[in-house]
Amino acid sequence: MSKVVTLGEILARFSTTAGTRISHIDHMQVVYGGGEANVAISLANFGHEVSFASKVPDNALGEAVKRHLKSHNVSTEFLLQGGPRLGTYYMEAGVGERGASVFFDRAGSSFAVMNDIEWNLSELFKDVDIFHVSGIVSAVSVAWRDMAVELVKAAKAAGCIVSFDVNYRGKMWSQAECGAVIQKILPYVDYCSAGHMDALYLLGIPEAPSDVANELVYYYEKMHQIFPNIKLFYATKRDVVSASHNRLTGAIWHQKDGLVMSKTHEINPIIDRVGGGDAFSGGVLHGILSGWILQESIDFGTAASALKHTVHGDTNLFSEREVSDFLAAGSGAIQR
Amino acid sequence: MSKVVTLGEILARFSTTAGTRISHIDHMQVVYGGGEANVAISLANFGHEVSFASKVPDNALGEAVKRHLKSHNVSTEFLLQGGPRLGTYYMEAGVGERGASVFFDRAGSSFAVMNDIEWNLSELFKDVDIFHVSGIVSAVSVAWRDMAVELVKAAKAAGCIVSFDVNYRGKMWSQAECGAVIQKILPYVDYCSAGHMDALYLLGIPEAPSDVANELVYYYEKMHQIFPNIKLFYATKRDVVSASHNRLTGAIWHQKDGLVMSKTHEINPIIDRVGGGDAFSGGVLHGILSGWILQESIDFGTAASALKHTVHGDTNLFSEREVSDFLAAGSGAIQR
Amino acid sequence: MSKVVTLGEILARFSTTAGTRISHIDHMQVVYGGGEANVAISLANFGHEVSFASKVPDNALGEAVKRHLKSHNVSTEFLLQGGPRLGTYYMEAGVGERGASVFFDRAGSSFAVMNDIEWNLSELFKDVDIFHVSGIVSAVSVAWRDMAVELVKAAKAAGCIVSFDVNYRGKMWSQAECGAVIQKILPYVDYCSAGHMDALYLLGIPEAPSDVANELVYYYEKMHQIFPNIKLFYATKRDVVSASHNRLTGAIWHQKDGLVMSKTHEINPIIDRVGGGDAFSGGVLHGILSGWILQESIDFGTAASALKHTVHGDTNLFSEREVSDFLAAGSGAIQR
Amino acid sequence: MSKVVTLGEILARFSTTAGTRISHIDHMQVVYGGGEANVAISLANFGHEVSFASKVPDNALGEAVKRHLKSHNVSTEFLLQGGPRLGTYYMEAGVGERGASVFFDRAGSSFAVMNDIEWNLSELFKDVDIFHVSGIVSAVSVAWRDMAVELVKAAKAAGCIVSFDVNYRGKMWSQAECGAVIQKILPYVDYCSAGHMDALYLLGIPEAPSDVANELVYYYEKMHQIFPNIKLFYATKRDVVSASHNRLTGAIWHQKDGLVMSKTHEINPIIDRVGGGDAFSGGVLHGILSGWILQESIDFGTAASALKHTVHGDTNLFSEREVSDFLAAGSGAIQR
Amino acid sequence: MSKVVTLGEILARFSTTAGTRISHIDHMQVVYGGGEANVAISLANFGHEVSFASKVPDNALGEAVKRHLKSHNVSTEFLLQGGPRLGTYYMEAGVGERGASVFFDRAGSSFAVMNDIEWNLSELFKDVDIFHVSGIVSAVSVAWRDMAVELVKAAKAAGCIVSFDVNYRGKMWSQAECGAVIQKILPYVDYCSAGHMDALYLLGIPEAPSDVANELVYYYEKMHQIFPNIKLFYATKRDVVSASHNRLTGAIWHQKDGLVMSKTHEINPIIDRVGGGDAFSGGVLHGILSGWILQESIDFGTAASALKHTVHGDTNLFSEREVSDFLAAGSGAIQR
Amino acid sequence: MSKVVTLGEILARFSTTAGTRISHIDHMQVVYGGGEANVAISLANFGHEVSFASKVPDNALGEAVKRHLKSHNVSTEFLLQGGPRLGTYYMEAGVGERGASVFFDRAGSSFAVMNDIEWNLSELFKDVDIFHVSGIVSAVSVAWRDMAVELVKAAKAAGCIVSFDVNYRGKMWSQAECGAVIQKILPYVDYCSAGHMDALYLLGIPEAPSDVANELVYYYEKMHQIFPNIKLFYATKRDVVSASHNRLTGAIWHQKDGLVMSKTHEINPIIDRVGGGDAFSGGVLHGILSGWILQESIDFGTAASALKHTVHGDTNLFSEREVSDFLAAGSGAIQR
Repeated sequence: MSKVVTLGEILARFSTTAGTRISHIDHMQVVYGGGEANVAISLANFGHEVSFASKVPDNALGEAVKRHLKSHNVSTEFLLQGGPRLGTYYMEAGVGERGASVFFDRAGSSFAVMNDIEWNLSELFKDVDIFHVSGIVSAVSVAWRDMAVELVKAAKAAGCIVSFDVNYRGKMWSQAECGAVIQKILPYVDYCSAGHMDALYLLGIPEAPSDVANELVYYYEKMHQIFPNIKLFYATKRDVVSASHNRLTGAIWHQKDGLVMSKTHEINPIIDRVGGGDAFSGGVLHGILSGWILQESIDFGTAASALKHTVHGDTNLFSEREVSDFLAAGSGAIQR
Repeated sequence: MSKVVTLGEILARFSTTAGTRISHIDHMQVVYGGGEANVAISLANFGHEVSFASKVPDNALGEAVKRHLKSHNVSTEFLLQGGPRLGTYYMEAGVGERGASVFFDRAGSSFAVMNDIEWNLSELFKDVDIFHVSGIVSAVSVAWRDMAVELVKAAKAAGCIVSFDVNYRGKMWSQAECGAVIQKILPYVDYCSAGHMDALYLLGIPEAPSDVANELVYYYEKMHQIFPNIKLFYATKRDVVSASHNRLTGAIWHQKDGLVMSKTHEINPIIDRVGGGDAFSGGVLHGILSGWILQESIDFGTAASALKHTVHGDTNLFSEREVSDFLAAGSGAIQR
Repeated sequence: MSKVVTLGEILARFSTTAGTRISHIDHMQVVYGGGEANVAISLANFGHEVSFASKVPDNALGEAVKRHLKSHNVSTEFLLQGGPRLGTYYMEAGVGERGASVFFDRAGSSFAVMNDIEWNLSELFKDVDIFHVSGIVSAVSVAWRDMAVELVKAAKAAGCIVSFDVNYRGKMWSQAECGAVIQKILPYVDYCSAGHMDALYLLGIPEAPSDVANELVYYYEKMHQIFPNIKLFYATKRDVVSASHNRLTGAIWHQKDGLVMSKTHEINPIIDRVGGGDAFSGGVLHGILSGWILQESIDFGTAASALKHTVHGDTNLFSEREVSDFLAAGSGAIQR
Repeated sequence: MSKVVTLGEILARFSTTAGTRISHIDHMQVVYGGGEANVAISLANFGHEVSFASKVPDNALGEAVKRHLKSHNVSTEFLLQGGPRLGTYYMEAGVGERGASVFFDRAGSSFAVMNDIEWNLSELFKDVDIFHVSGIVSAVSVAWRDMAVELVKAAKAAGCIVSFDVNYRGKMWSQAECGAVIQKILPYVDYCSAGHMDALYLLGIPEAPSDVANELVYYYEKMHQIFPNIKLFYATKRDVVSASHNRLTGAIWHQKDGLVMSKTHEINPIIDRVGGGDAFSGGVLHGILSGWILQESIDFGTAASALKHTVHGDTNLFSEREVSDFLAAGSGAIQR
Repeated sequence: MSKVVTLGEILARFSTTAGTRISHIDHMQVVYGGGEANVAISLANFGHEVSFASKVPDNALGEAVKRHLKSHNVSTEFLLQGGPRLGTYYMEAGVGERGASVFFDRAGSSFAVMNDIEWNLSELFKDVDIFHVSGIVSAVSVAWRDMAVELVKAAKAAGCIVSFDVNYRGKMWSQAECGAVIQKILPYVDYCSAGHMDALYLLGIPEAPSDVANELVYYYEKMHQIFPNIKLFYATKRDVVSASHNRLTGAIWHQKDGLVMSKTHEINPIIDRVGGGDAFSGGVLHGILSGWILQESIDFGTAASALKHTVHGDTNLFSEREVSDFLAAGSGAIQR
Repeated sequence: MSKVVTLGEILARFSTTAGTRISHIDHMQVVYGGGEANVAISLANFGHEVSFASKVPDNALGEAVKRHLKSHNVSTEFLLQGGPRLGTYYMEAGVGERGASVFFDRAGSSFAVMNDIEWNLSELFKDVDIFHVSGIVSAVSVAWRDMAVELVKAAKAAGCIVSFDVNYRGKMWSQAECGAVIQKILPYVDYCSAGHMDALYLLGIPEAPSDVANELVYYYEKMHQIFPNIKLFYATKRDVVSASHNRLTGAIWHQKDGLVMSKTHEINPIIDRVGGGDAFSGGVLHGILSGWILQESIDFGTAASALKHTVHGDTNLFSEREVSDFLAAGSGAIQR
């Protein structure tokens, strides 16, 4: 098993149950999550030794975050406590043709107002096999744009594999702003979760010619030409039939083995799709860290993501054995 | 924006959550609704100045009705309080092949026992642009058959547009009884929600010949010949795949522009279909009152109805902007 | 109407709501059920005079079982109270591609530790038309293997029709163990719920040749040749699209009339599939006991099973009239 | 054990949870109860063979009433099904200084609109030891005033002990109306639940002189002089500290043994006081029917009532053993 | 009835149910409230024409605030929509000896970041009888210290009665800061809710000599000497037996009639004490605006506050009639 | 901070909410607890490094136990997984005069069927400061009587302080059986939670003479004479006003300083008293391990116990700071 550190912001999500609206209800569900925290929990579920680095306030919500992580076997040694508040967001669950509706209230959070790297980086990365972070961290503030670069450099210098999820969010910053930052980050990255939209709009790679055999291969190869240090790209293709029914296929590309696709999962009904991408990343990384072949890794990662869609919350709640059993079982029979 | 009055009975609905039966449960959901009240709320959501006229008892259920209306921005100036009781009905939610099951307990309600029009009609219709009422009002009692006619006459005389939803309910009265009453009402109507069944069974229009180009056009034209005052007919076509999955298409006919159809919505899963027709009427009327073209109006109305199916309760909870965004978004992606 | 006795173990089922996991929740749903108890309740719903024989502890869970049965009109005259505990099991509801997950905690239950038949059999079977039991009873303990045989012999001797549901559970005993016991039981059986897997693996009937016209007819005829006392076989064919969507078709075979199939039900969404097979048996037996023709019986039984899937709990909650209305209504329209 | 029949109306009670108001909530608790039904359930809990006679509609609420009674071991042989509706009432739970608030919606119920005694009285009273009814039955309609008298006469003629609970409700009829009716009923009564207010205001007994040794003895003796057939009077004295805290003492008077008082129970907090009086009657009647001495009977009845206050619903959920254990245990220690 | 404007911040309160902790739960109750909004709702309940002025974001939480106010009959004409966020706070309910625990997350709210008075003051105060505001408004930001003074001046100039609740919160600002601001506000105030702590620590009035007849009279007279424009002072005395049990007494002082006390309410159990002070202010102001004598006003206000403690949320849910009935009823009997 | 190991059985508790009965409900609350696990969590909350040793099955309930412990910062390094089942028990919450009702279903649990000490004791006790266990462990089985003795001997030999809680349960074994075992355990014990009943009935110490100054001092001194190795005794005195209201006082005795009492806590209402004794032990041990004086230790321990009564579940959810703040705050004021 590997030693893992992930770092990012973790938020409280307040949400409705399906069929109700925030303006009409007297209670809300609350869960805690964030891209890097979700990947941390996935990898801990699969047996790795994982620590999540972030900063949360010294109040009951910060305490709730700590309990959440600990209960999923993630170390909180590098979870700083202090600062003004926990970022939150609000979600009305989607139903059928009506998509989920989300708005954020994350400005001024304990993580967002950090101006300096408050961790001792030699401690943070000591004996760490892999460091995972996403583009959202850099979107949080101007200060974080620099700190994110500094972190991946330090991780690389400390001998970690660096895993990066582009995770572009248009509401947080422009494509230009994001592109500028990830240009600085990608030279230190080993594994990268990115799709063809990222190649086109963030990295300015020209659109694939119409006669290209496989578009995704084209974009991954182009990105690999620019950043030859990136050995591995992966992404999901999500076919949105409705907010309650998606089809999900995973893709992985390795510099040696080229592109491999998973089977397609029919996810119907969807209980909660938030964190589905993080469960995918966690599953793929687990396969890679375990030395599995690409097909095994992408099947496992996509299955982990499909399973995540069947439970409430941002968090993949399944062990390696459960994901594997799910892959083997095919579809939906009672296990008794 | 227009000034609107709707008038009708409003009931308390007690219902189960999906998968349970009334005879086995220890609590029930309660919501308040009725055709005209639901249209009132839709139009208030869309920005009109709306008043709902009815009569409810002077007890906590009457109070709940008032709060319900006020919280949706509908004036209760003409909501009389008094009389014996609030009508109620009970519903077991449908699931898949099993349809919802409903029974009514509305006899003797404060509205049903009214024998005289207790509103000052010149006040009720003062400066009102449009008066909306449905055939259910006349079905409530023998006295109401006359009062309904009197109301539409007075509205017309006061210069209101009169909007009428046939809304035939076989459990409340016979086709003959209903037909006799609506024959008296339709001469005062401008906009009419009606389908081909109403033409056939209530108005006695002969069945469309097999070679007619479009059946609905045939029936609407026939009705228009009888009641040339009616400029506008509209209806939905509902394809019931199951109680959890319907397909919904809207149709609108104008004496000048003929028939226009909306796109078809896949509603799956259905959270609650009660009030879906009223949301449609509210949406169509909003388009017409706003001076939109038929296609915009019918698209908007059908989308409003589709949205209503995704929330609990009789009430369309969406604003004009939300309905328009839904129309534009297509299907089911998270908005963040 | 007939007088019915069923006998078997009844368990408490603790379960999650869809989308949650046992390891993360602070409350569980609890219902009570077991194959024979579920058949008892179905037949009581349909108007028969039914008694359920079992043994439950003298504590609040035993009391809960009694109330459950009584509230469904099943006599508890032969429900013994005593012994150490009520067997329980735990279920995480399945969603989409993820099947339900079940584990049992039934060892040492009041029923399982019985070593002697504690009922006075002449009282138990007095005036009884039909005695129903399943193969699970014999799987509970070594002592129960003998007691089960003794019971069906006694029932037969007392003039009862004997109804038997093979209901093989691989987690409870081997195919060889089960086969040995049912070989002793089947000579006393009149009606038998069994499928082609039972024929193949429990009774050792050779696989159907590839040119056989209808496989199920082949197996039923073979079984009938061995046990000519069995006049009637029946089974469902379940097509598992996912844990949330099944297709269900019923089949019945009579020595005189051969095989008859029901229409196929699309069950989507599934609220709770536990007890679906028992609702089917109850429905089929009701048809047979009522003297209906095979087509009516199998249509009714399959419809009863489809309805069961639309409610929580092991228990079919529908009356004969409701099942018949459901059959007649087709699919999913509101009844008001 | 005795054979018991009670007869009266049973209603659905819709209520809030503590701290909420009907006009602001989206679901309500529902339970079923009525004075005579509650006494029936109490006596069935204590081991008697009990039947409850009433009339409920043939809908899901009527079905719910049946299940409620059956689950508590009360026979529904004489529970007629038909008529327009089930009477309902609504309650906001009281808290501290704020008393519970109740309003009724019982007009036009299936029971209230009965004009003839629809039971075969010789069957109803066959082999019955005791018939229990309350004054509320006569308050339901003018027709019921006569039918109530007819029923007690017939019960008496059939050899039953007649038990009567005055249960005067000022909202249903005047003291004069009630007094006139109970004057006709009391000559047939053996056991009577009544207090000094009933003596004063319904029977017109002059106020006790100030020097009387015990006021209650005075009133009971006066009533006994008028109706020497009544051997037994009983009542509770309730000291209302607040809606959450009552003190309850039972009193019983027998023509031979005079007045006996129970110990006083501190009921704090009160979970639900509705049905507390019926649990008291049920407990006292159980003692008398069991041949216990007055002290045992009144202690048991008062303890049963105190226990009722600790559970939701109208229904005493405790067995004879549980009431006795409660009496013996004193106050509030865990039993493990 | 009077025309009323109140102005202040309104927050979302997220809270636990009794006996749980924020760090361990998966859902929270949400209600909306703030001192001035709560007073607005109380006065609207009592029949006044009330408008609440504030600023909330243009998202679902802002929408929820609007619905909350409208449903309680408060006009949202002056409720601005815009700015970054709605202030929130979190509360763990207190139980017995353990007090409630609260922490705020209100920095950066739409109201707090206002730098200019965005209302047209001549419209805001047009025909207004009374303007009510509290010291919390000035505590929100440095800008609000000036704006608060400006508002009371403008209200006074427009002919309004000015009502002010000192409401000092030590977590928001120091006594010195608060004192400086209220010195500027009090010269324009007519009615003032303040206690002896405010006199001592905010206004620097010397401690009452030990031989003073009545301490509260001493402090109110001293304050009146400094601010002779203040005709009326009022406050509650709260005796905290525990978080579940308080005793509450109201006091009112008028320049002509001196000090009058209410009866003392035993509030046990407390459902929710937040908003209890605002319900008191609302009740007292209603009495004064209605021209009642001091004793009636203080009894009504204190009863309104006691009632508020019996319901969840910040909001007094009772009408004038209900408060009066409560006052008359004394304590805790069922009303049926 | 100290390194702590506790060892014992942990059970699932299924319980009702107040005012309901197990035989009538469709869901139950579930929490996990046991004496030694509860003490482990308390000490982890207070900052110690704690491990809990036990054995749970390899199923979802075992997983739930692991998550429960981890989420409270307790190490599961010595939590074995395997064996047949998790012990459970069922509880109906007590209300007022009605005490809670509990029954156990713990036979055959993974812990109870252990026949050998499966931990490597030199690892288990490595660097451990204090080992805590209770008498319940020995009551679980005959094998555990010996294993318990073996464990305390090994702990002592490894240099641990041994802490023992007598915790006699009459339903599990006789006083004689218990007495025989604890006679073997106490010679190795340093700190002992025991009361005068234990001295009298388990150790056979003669009853205190009537003229003894302090009974508890007498019994502790007598026990100390027999087991001079025990330096410290402690216990609570619980005055049960009702199941909803207890008074709690702590007592501690040290061989040098004699007896010290805490202040008395009024616990009203009680949310959940299970685990109250363990919270007391945890609090006292924390004081002792922290080197506090007796008065501080007993005040802290009793306050921790009082706080535990205000939350659901077996688990003390409060940190050292929160307990200290509670001690300082006195009673029940909001903290904002």
